[in-house]
Amino acid sequence: MKLSISITATLLLTCCIMFAQRPPAISSPDVNPDHSITFRYYSKTAQRVTLKGEFLQSPLSFIGDTSGIWTVTVPPVKPDIYPYSFLVDSVEIADPNNTYIFANERFKRSIVDIPGDAPLVHSLQNVFHGKISYRYYNSTTLGITRQLLVYTPPGFNPNGKIKYPVLYLIHGGSDTEETWTKVGHANLIADNLIAQKKAVPMIIVMPYGNVRPKPMADFTKDVINDIIPFIESNYPVLMDNKNRAVAGFSVGGGQTLNIGLTNTDKFGYICSYAPYTATEEFQKNFTNWSPDADKVNKQVKLFTISVGTDDFLYESVKKNIAMFEERKINLKPHIVSGGHTWMNCKLFLATTLQEIFH
Amino acid sequence: MKLSISITATLLLTCCIMFAQRPPAISSPDVNPDHSITFRYYSKTAQRVTLKGEFLQSPLSFIGDTSGIWTVTVPPVKPDIYPYSFLVDSVEIADPNNTYIFANERFKRSIVDIPGDAPLVHSLQNVFHGKISYRYYNSTTLGITRQLLVYTPPGFNPNGKIKYPVLYLIHGGSDTEETWTKVGHANLIADNLIAQKKAVPMIIVMPYGNVRPKPMADFTKDVINDIIPFIESNYPVLMDNKNRAVAGFSVGGGQTLNIGLTNTDKFGYICSYAPYTATEEFQKNFTNWSPDADKVNKQVKLFTISVGTDDFLYESVKKNIAMFEERKINLKPHIVSGGHTWMNCKLFLATTLQEIFH
Repeated sequence: MKLSISITATLLLTCCIMFAQRPPAISSPDVNPDHSITFRYYSKTAQRVTLKGEFLQSPLSFIGDTSGIWTVTVPPVKPDIYPYSFLVDSVEIADPNNTYIFANERFKRSIVDIPGDAPLVHSLQNVFHGKISYRYYNSTTLGITRQLLVYTPPGFNPNGKIKYPVLYLIHGGSDTEETWTKVGHANLIADNLIAQKKAVPMIIVMPYGNVRPKPMADFTKDVINDIIPFIESNYPVLMDNKNRAVAGFSVGGGQTLNIGLTNTDKFGYICSYAPYTATEEFQKNFTNWSPDADKVNKQVKLFTISVGTDDFLYESVKKNIAMFEERKINLKPHIVSGGHTWMNCKLFLATTLQEIFH
Repeated sequence: MKLSISITATLLLTCCIMFAQRPPAISSPDVNPDHSITFRYYSKTAQRVTLKGEFLQSPLSFIGDTSGIWTVTVPPVKPDIYPYSFLVDSVEIADPNNTYIFANERFKRSIVDIPGDAPLVHSLQNVFHGKISYRYYNSTTLGITRQLLVYTPPGFNPNGKIKYPVLYLIHGGSDTEETWTKVGHANLIADNLIAQKKAVPMIIVMPYGNVRPKPMADFTKDVINDIIPFIESNYPVLMDNKNRAVAGFSVGGGQTLNIGLTNTDKFGYICSYAPYTATEEFQKNFTNWSPDADKVNKQVKLFTISVGTDDFLYESVKKNIAMFEERKINLKPHIVSGGHTWMNCKLFLATTLQEIFH
C-alpha cells in the first residue's frame, strides 16, 4: 500500500503544479448580505483596474495589493441583475472568475445578480419550473439551419390535448437568442407569474434576430415563413391571432413593430420595448403608412410601447408613439424611469406576460 | 410626409451617434476556404496584441494598422473546434467579436469551428436533431436548486412507450454544465451517430460537477441521490445498470471513476477521459481498494480510460490504468495522440457513444 500512497502523493504534486499555471481561483463577484458587492481581479502586471457597471453612475477604481489581487467594494445597490465589466489598463474585459456572461456578439460583459430580501419576479423561486429547449430549424428564407430557444411551461406535454398560446420574443441588437434567458431570465419570470396565476401557461419562442448580411426585413420573413411553421408543426399551439404575440427590445423592439404591424392577422398582441426604429425596414413600412385603423384596432387586442425616461431612445420612442397615435392606432404607452437596460427589459416582459392571452 | 421623413433622418443620425460609442463591428474570426483563419481586434491604445490558440504551437503577433484594426492570419489548420484567446498587452481576453465563448468559470476564451471538407462527427449536419433542455432539480445533498442539461434524441416522446438508456456526462474542472454542448457539441455528435445508426437513441444528462465549498464526494451523492431520481421520475428511462452509463473529462473523468466504480450495481458503462485523480475522494476510494474483481467485471459491461499521449496527465493516467489492471478489473485503455483538450474530448465521446447500450 505504501507504493500506491507515494504514487498518489507524487500525482497530487504534479497535477497541482500543472493546474497552478492558471491564474489563482479568486471569488468575484461576492454579493454581501447588505447588497454591497465585492469584485476581485488578479493581475501582477496591470497598472490600473476600473469597474464599470450599470449599477454605477461612474467607474470605480480597484485597489491592488502586492500579491496581485485587485479589489473594489460597491456600496449597497438595488436588488436586480446588472451587466458589468472591468477596464484593465485600456482593455475592457468580462470578469474572468464569473461564469455568468452577457450573451452578446459585440461585447463581453459579466452579470451580477443581487437577490432581493423578498424574491424578485426574475428570481429562481420554489415553484414548478418550465424548460428551455435549444432547437434547430431550417430557415428557407435564409438558406441555413439556425438555432432558437423554446420555453415550455411547467406540466407541458408535447402530445397532450392542451394547446398553448405562443409569444415570439426578440433580443436587442448584437444580443443573441440566449440573451432573453441568460440576462433577461424570461423563463424564471414566466415560471413565477404562471405559479402566481398572473400569467397563463404559454410557450415563449426566442429566435436569433440578426440576419446580416441579409437585410433586416428578411428576419420578418424568417419569422412568418419559417419560425412560426416550425413551432406550429412541432408544438401543440393555438394558431389564431388571439393566441400569438410578438415582443422585443431595442433593435428587436423595432423588429416587433415591423413583424407585428405588417401581420396583424397573425399577431393579436404587439409589445415593443424601447424600439430602435432608425432602420430601412421601419422607414419602408411606416413612412407612408396609411393603415385601416379600425381594422388594425379590431385585430390587435393589445399594442404597447414601453420605454424608460432615461433611455437614449426616449425622444425617438415618443415620436414613434405620436406617429402611431396620429394614424389612430390604439396604443398603450408604458413609460417608466430608467434607461436602455435589461433591468427595464425584465420589468417590461413581466408586464407583458400579465397582459397577454387573457 | 416631409415631416416624418425628416424625423426619421434625424433619428437615424441620433441613433447612429449613440451606437457609435461602441467599438466598430469587425469580423473575427473569419475561417477562410483553405482553412486558414483571420482574427481581428480593435484597439487604438494597445501596444501589442498576440493570439493564443490550441491550433498553435506558440503565440502569434497581430499587426495593427493606423485605424486601430489589428489582424493576424493563421495558416490552414486541421478542421476541428479550438479554444483561443487574445493577449492584449498583458491582459488575456476572449475575442470581443465572437459570440462563441468557452463555457468556463475561471477563464474566458473563444471558440473557432473549422468545418471539414466532409462533415465532421461534431458538425451540424442535415439529420434529425434532438433537443437540449435546461432543467432545474432540487439537490437534497447540496441543499440548493441546481441546473442541468438534458439531451433527448430525435423523435423523443416524454409520454410514449419507448424507454431510453441514459448517459451521465460530466465536464472538466472549472467547466460548467454547458461545456459539453457549447464546446463539446455532445448533442450534435449524438444526433449524427444516431442518424448513422452507430449509436442507439439515448438521453444524455449533463450536470454541474462543481460542488465547492463542499467536498467533491458530495457530487457523487448528488448524482446518486438527486440527479438520477430526478431524471428517472421525469423521463421515460430504463433503470437497470445495462442502461446507465457515466463518462467525464479531466476532473470529471476522476469523478466518473469515483461515481462509477463505487456504484457498479448502477452503472454498466464507465468511460473516463483523461481523468484527474489527485483528489481526496479518489485516494479514499482507491488507495486501499480491494474489489471483488469478478463481481465488478460481471456488473460492468465496459470500462474505458481514454487519454492522449501529449496530455499533461498521461503518466498519471497510465498509473491509474496499471492500478486498475493490478486489481484485475477489466479495462479498455484508449490511447490516442494529442493533449488535454476538448478536441480529444469530442473524439472520446464519439467513441463512447458507439460502444455503450448495444
